[in-house]
Amino acid sequence: MARSKEIFVLGSAGDILYWDMETKMPPAAQAMRGEQLSALELIIHKRLTDPENDALLKKCEGDLNAFDQLQKRNLHLLRKSYDENSKIPDKLVTETAIHQSKCNAVWKKAKAARDFKMFQDDLAKMIDLREQAAEILMKVKGTKTPYDALLDQFEPNMTAARIDEVFAELRQGLIKLIEKVESCDRRPDMSPMSRKVPVEVQKKISLDVMNFIKFDTTSDKAAGRLDETEHPFTTGKYDDVRITTHYYEDRFFSNVFSVMHEGGHALYDQGIPREWMFQPIGTPCSYGIHESQSRFVENIVGRSPEFLSYALPKFRKYSPRSFKGLKNRDIIAAANAVVPSKIRIEADEVTYALHIIIRFEIEKMIFSHKVTVDELPQVWNQKYSDYLGVKVEHDGEGVLQDTHWSGGSFGYFPSYALGNIYSGMFLDKMQKDVPQWRRSVRGGDFSPVLGWLRTNVHAKGDLYDPADLVKVVTGKEVTVAPFLKYLDRKMSKIYGF
Amino acid sequence: MARSKEIFVLGSAGDILYWDMETKMPPAAQAMRGEQLSALELIIHKRLTDPENDALLKKCEGDLNAFDQLQKRNLHLLRKSYDENSKIPDKLVTETAIHQSKCNAVWKKAKAARDFKMFQDDLAKMIDLREQAAEILMKVKGTKTPYDALLDQFEPNMTAARIDEVFAELRQGLIKLIEKVESCDRRPDMSPMSRKVPVEVQKKISLDVMNFIKFDTTSDKAAGRLDETEHPFTTGKYDDVRITTHYYEDRFFSNVFSVMHEGGHALYDQGIPREWMFQPIGTPCSYGIHESQSRFVENIVGRSPEFLSYALPKFRKYSPRSFKGLKNRDIIAAANAVVPSKIRIEADEVTYALHIIIRFEIEKMIFSHKVTVDELPQVWNQKYSDYLGVKVEHDGEGVLQDTHWSGGSFGYFPSYALGNIYSGMFLDKMQKDVPQWRRSVRGGDFSPVLGWLRTNVHAKGDLYDPADLVKVVTGKEVTVAPFLKYLDRKMSKIYGF
Repeated sequence: MARSKEIFVLGSAGDILYWDMETKMPPAAQAMRGEQLSALELIIHKRLTDPENDALLKKCEGDLNAFDQLQKRNLHLLRKSYDENSKIPDKLVTETAIHQSKCNAVWKKAKAARDFKMFQDDLAKMIDLREQAAEILMKVKGTKTPYDALLDQFEPNMTAARIDEVFAELRQGLIKLIEKVESCDRRPDMSPMSRKVPVEVQKKISLDVMNFIKFDTTSDKAAGRLDETEHPFTTGKYDDVRITTHYYEDRFFSNVFSVMHEGGHALYDQGIPREWMFQPIGTPCSYGIHESQSRFVENIVGRSPEFLSYALPKFRKYSPRSFKGLKNRDIIAAANAVVPSKIRIEADEVTYALHIIIRFEIEKMIFSHKVTVDELPQVWNQKYSDYLGVKVEHDGEGVLQDTHWSGGSFGYFPSYALGNIYSGMFLDKMQKDVPQWRRSVRGGDFSPVLGWLRTNVHAKGDLYDPADLVKVVTGKEVTVAPFLKYLDRKMSKIYGF
Repeated sequence: MARSKEIFVLGSAGDILYWDMETKMPPAAQAMRGEQLSALELIIHKRLTDPENDALLKKCEGDLNAFDQLQKRNLHLLRKSYDENSKIPDKLVTETAIHQSKCNAVWKKAKAARDFKMFQDDLAKMIDLREQAAEILMKVKGTKTPYDALLDQFEPNMTAARIDEVFAELRQGLIKLIEKVESCDRRPDMSPMSRKVPVEVQKKISLDVMNFIKFDTTSDKAAGRLDETEHPFTTGKYDDVRITTHYYEDRFFSNVFSVMHEGGHALYDQGIPREWMFQPIGTPCSYGIHESQSRFVENIVGRSPEFLSYALPKFRKYSPRSFKGLKNRDIIAAANAVVPSKIRIEADEVTYALHIIIRFEIEKMIFSHKVTVDELPQVWNQKYSDYLGVKVEHDGEGVLQDTHWSGGSFGYFPSYALGNIYSGMFLDKMQKDVPQWRRSVRGGDFSPVLGWLRTNVHAKGDLYDPADLVKVVTGKEVTVAPFLKYLDRKMSKIYGF
């Protein structure tokens, strides 16, 4: 536990350095920050792979009956972490870290130039490096395929085969829903989304929103901060969790929903039981479960007619001119409109998962060698045409749009859509446990929702792998039905089908 | 050198964590920040005291002819650091670190309650802990007394005996100057110092001031930042140096001079030769030399009639009302007025060193057991009456005013007055090398001054112990004459003697 604590503490120091790099650091400091972060990472890596850990674990594992359930889970997580980290050769770790920096820089240039060819060779090398790691991890983890080993890093114990089943159902359901929506005559007017709201007003609104979700950044007991970055993110744990947002005068809702999305992540990070601090179980469950929390707050609550009906009058008061001539109903419809698009991070709640499914299918192809790197743009564009009916004009808005692959994060994307699916299942259960939640939100009270999330999700820390957590909370295997039902109900009201 | 680099890099990561703690950190994060900082400190301590260092150093020391002068200096500094760090028992290091936190917290309470008795026992314990360390360090460093060993930590190779000589002359000179000033009929009207300047205006002025001294916080090559804290400070090295200031509507100059003071520190930290980065010689020389740089920029330049004549018209433009009815001459007089006071950090340029001399004399008494802890308030108040002619009303404005002793920083205070003395010597030399510097400053051009400081002080890094550096730069042993001459000339113009 002392070793676990040191690793946690050093990691959290690294979080602050990363946050500072993205928000406050003077530009000239980039190189030194790289030195600082890699010095810390190296120390953490050495601690994680210290052979003494193995000896200590073996001693414990030889006397398992002496431990309670929580301790056994700690042992399991420590064993997994030790085996996985120590089996990857230092050379591969270093080579991958060095190539990540290079590959990310090349990706940025290629994206700006809208030219996949510039990126192709470095991406191929990155795939090769990750494949080497995946081959090793496959044996350690006992997964069926290398890609499953990559998935397991983000969503423990989730396999491509299982995701296949779930995503097939999800895709079918979403496409049916999109067809339903498109067959309706009613079409939300999207102009409310680009009404101008002064940045100073938006900053006040951010505070209101954080107040509503109970993410405290202002009191003398605050354990959070809000800052500005182009791409919003959340970092930190327990008593120091920081979110960021961006302000665009003509994209008012982008800030509101960013604050709610990152706020959802932040509440989870703050809500892990304090008595497990520094223990392996004292961490969030998985990337997918994390995403379920951000999407719950952003979409299920934030885009709900109830929240918007409560919040819009307040927003209007700050800047009456911005919303002049608009009915709340029109704004709510626009904020929930289904508009198939080419860019994942701008996607609406219904089409979003299709972007993810495309990436998942392509990643599977890559790691089963069913596609070569130079074919990726063509495959990408074809799928966007097939699933979303949009025509990708250039690689910048196509295969180059996301940063993930340039950093070697293959297996990460599915978590986003799994987050949607989990959030639907949680909603279904919460609806039964706290049937009055919509009325509370309408009245400005988030506490029934937060209380439910705290008790059912946050309080569980890393006691379970994600599918098991979902089972414990909802009593069900992972299923897309609740998420689809939730979307269908909401859209039927917006589009009138 | 690789070991030296890792220690430097981890230390600089700690600087960021410290900066964040003082400027941005959510209040609830205090305990976790303590964990992060002490985890880093422990790692650094282990690295500094690794016996393998000793073996490597011995190998080099056995073949000294193979090294050039810079390398020899590196070896000297590494040897000194290893010997000093490794000789203090871990138990004493830990005990001191723990007591520092406690003692500082108790000091804060005692200061607020204006009651030295509350602090007395913890201070006694802190003195005892530092005395234990000093006894050990005395042997390692080969100093005559334990107190000399403490001094050496801040001002290498400087002894209490030498400081005694220098301070005796300084005290005499300052008291004579104060008498001269007090015998004059002319008395600057101090009301300009409390004219109200809106905080938003002061922020613009901070930018102007940083622009003037060439401390860049805004360009895309910026290696600096400015933030707000109650007590201004500077932290960082090379490409990431951060200063803080405070804004009080009715203490306009407090911000201006804080930015210049911290800016002087920052320029030094940025000005160490880049080719020595990560080497022991690639660090500032001493606390006293550091303070000479901050005081040079704050006092010699910042309070000069030339700078103020250049800057005041700009400040007036931002907020004409604030300075209405005031002549520049009156403002300059007020900014340089000699007003003996009880609080060190509010002292003027002439009386400041007397505050330091009092502390130095008391520290010597403590470590030669000529005073007991319970006698400190009485001794303190007597000296303030004798040297400054002021009556201390309570411990809060007396012996409890500074934080240094609560953290065990005995031997630190002399650096402040040595900084004054060095700055006077540097001025004397610069005057000969760059006789037109005042004209340049009057015209808004700081570059001749900065160029001189860069070449003569910053570029020397830690090549010399402070007295040797001063000798190399000025050709003279440490002497107070130039500092006294500088003050005398300035005050004769203000007071007309």
